[in-house]
Amino acid sequence: MNLESQWITGFVDGEGCFHIGISRHPEMKAGYQVLPEFVVVQHERDIQVLYALKSFFGCGRVVNNHGDRKAFRVRKLEHMMEIIVPFFEKHELKTKKRLDFICFRKVLQMMQRNEHLEEAGLERIRRIKARMNRGRIR
Amino acid sequence: MNLESQWITGFVDGEGCFHIGISRHPEMKAGYQVLPEFVVVQHERDIQVLYALKSFFGCGRVVNNHGDRKAFRVRKLEHMMEIIVPFFEKHELKTKKRLDFICFRKVLQMMQRNEHLEEAGLERIRRIKARMNRGRIR
Repeated sequence: MNLESQWITGFVDGEGCFHIGISRHPEMKAGYQVLPEFVVVQHERDIQVLYALKSFFGCGRVVNNHGDRKAFRVRKLEHMMEIIVPFFEKHELKTKKRLDFICFRKVLQMMQRNEHLEEAGLERIRRIKARMNRGRIR
Repeated sequence: MNLESQWITGFVDGEGCFHIGISRHPEMKAGYQVLPEFVVVQHERDIQVLYALKSFFGCGRVVNNHGDRKAFRVRKLEHMMEIIVPFFEKHELKTKKRLDFICFRKVLQMMQRNEHLEEAGLERIRRIKARMNRGRIR
């Protein structure tokens, strides 16, 4: 299955998620780990679309989500910065999800500068995360 | 906001629905009314995307859905047959929603031949409807 860039943008406007996870991690300097991920979840009947995304981007994995749902997921910082971010900069999302993407990119850039390893940076990432997805003022 | 065909196909693969409503209507010969509709539902924050779809297709309406959700909806048989169906024939859906589209088109074609007004046709539409969307064997 071959996907076109605009199809992907439309599909991600509907089904994609730019997510920042923050979890306790005692071995990290600031006590927490920051885990950004780009995810597209589908019912397992459409797993071939997830593999087509993986093939298009040349990165990420197809993994189990919940129950009969599967996910295409990208977690590696370098794949995000070199592949995912440039793609959505070139092919702009049309829905308000674009604002989540902009916050997501901001966090990635901070991580590249290792700011997430310091308390101040982590706090700033928390504030950005709080404004994303369901937390955003509509 | 200008939309490209492939963006629309991707977005509809995620968010669109081809729905066949069947409701009691004592004045109809078979006692029931068949109401096909093509719908895209979004949170009201993205209402401009729904208006962009309306503008792209040159038919349909933007209406209230439930709570803070809005919908772009096409119900007129002629708009469906002349605009919506040809669009998705030209720009094929990539997910299994394509199968719903094929069932949907079948019902529209039966309606054009007034088969939904007879008991046998109505029964056949019921069987097609049962196989669509959540009723489909994955």
